[in-house]
Amino acid sequence: MAQGSLYIVSAPSGAGKTSLVRALMERMGGLAFSVSHTTRPMRPGEQDGRDYHFVTVDTFEAMIGAGEFLEHARVFDNYYGTSLAAVQAQLARGEDVFLDIDWQGARQVREQLPEAYGVFILPPSRAALESRLQGRGQDGPEVIARRMRDAVSEAAHYDEYDYLIINDDFDTALNELGAIVTSARLRRPRQAARHAGMLAELLGD
Amino acid sequence: MAQGSLYIVSAPSGAGKTSLVRALMERMGGLAFSVSHTTRPMRPGEQDGRDYHFVTVDTFEAMIGAGEFLEHARVFDNYYGTSLAAVQAQLARGEDVFLDIDWQGARQVREQLPEAYGVFILPPSRAALESRLQGRGQDGPEVIARRMRDAVSEAAHYDEYDYLIINDDFDTALNELGAIVTSARLRRPRQAARHAGMLAELLGD
Repeated sequence: MAQGSLYIVSAPSGAGKTSLVRALMERMGGLAFSVSHTTRPMRPGEQDGRDYHFVTVDTFEAMIGAGEFLEHARVFDNYYGTSLAAVQAQLARGEDVFLDIDWQGARQVREQLPEAYGVFILPPSRAALESRLQGRGQDGPEVIARRMRDAVSEAAHYDEYDYLIINDDFDTALNELGAIVTSARLRRPRQAARHAGMLAELLGD
Repeated sequence: MAQGSLYIVSAPSGAGKTSLVRALMERMGGLAFSVSHTTRPMRPGEQDGRDYHFVTVDTFEAMIGAGEFLEHARVFDNYYGTSLAAVQAQLARGEDVFLDIDWQGARQVREQLPEAYGVFILPPSRAALESRLQGRGQDGPEVIARRMRDAVSEAAHYDEYDYLIINDDFDTALNELGAIVTSARLRRPRQAARHAGMLAELLGD
């Protein structure tokens, strides 16, 4: 079984990251989001191990202490984190795993898994970003201005990533994200593992 | 202008390499074969600088002496070679350049241009290879056996390349080769050069 690849996907709000990754998963097999750990309560319809690994604060803090997280953060009263063991189990099953995290989480992950592919997604212009951040037009100019500052500040970290996609046309950007994943699957070590039997037959006597 | 990428494409005879690269060039823009130098006479319909750079033996040997070739070989009475300057001129125009050479030429090129992407193409089985090498059935078993030995000997060098494509279904293999090229175009340094103006506008004040 060939090992899957890990993708760190980051973008400012309004770049279309989540829609792109979801659309790619509908199109290609073998892709999965990483399943995070969290201390927040399970909501109706959620399933432990599929939506999140739901754990207690004690467990989460013990995992932090044991260095078991690739990255973690506290958001208000709850912890969220990506465990190295959970990601490695997915990769070992041959899945390509997507981590949807910001540039700070990306730095933490890269330290432990430098072979991860970093993909950054940007909107095609400031005007496009502003228009996408205005949402349904129910927010005041201060709120929009604040979102713009946050988004531009995240966008400035594009240069820490291996790949850059400009999401101008959605289908083009989707094809581009797909090409990055397909290309990584064609890297020789992965192909050699996948086709080990065929290679032995072709090259043997 | 973003610099193009260099692709070294190798395969045993019968793997379908030339058909794949030609089909990709019809589908995608910005791709070109490298234009080799040769000392053989120009044939009707050929054009200097397009099909080959036609030079004299004296010129060719002076270029060898000056270390101007990425790789070169003598085939019977004629020299063939790929000049570093010719390839660099194509890359500087933003073209993605394909070098169609064997594993020995590939090693020579990699020494001087380690950033080149190596792509190796294999047939899906020994039976498929043998069937493709039998051609129109006009050759004796010794000739076929000799071709098979040569092809398997070339195939054994697949592990010196970055990417491996198994050409079982032509359209799948064509999409895969396209994904490798698309993905390389999305690498951040190249995208940052191509979209420098847009990035300045997005990130500036």
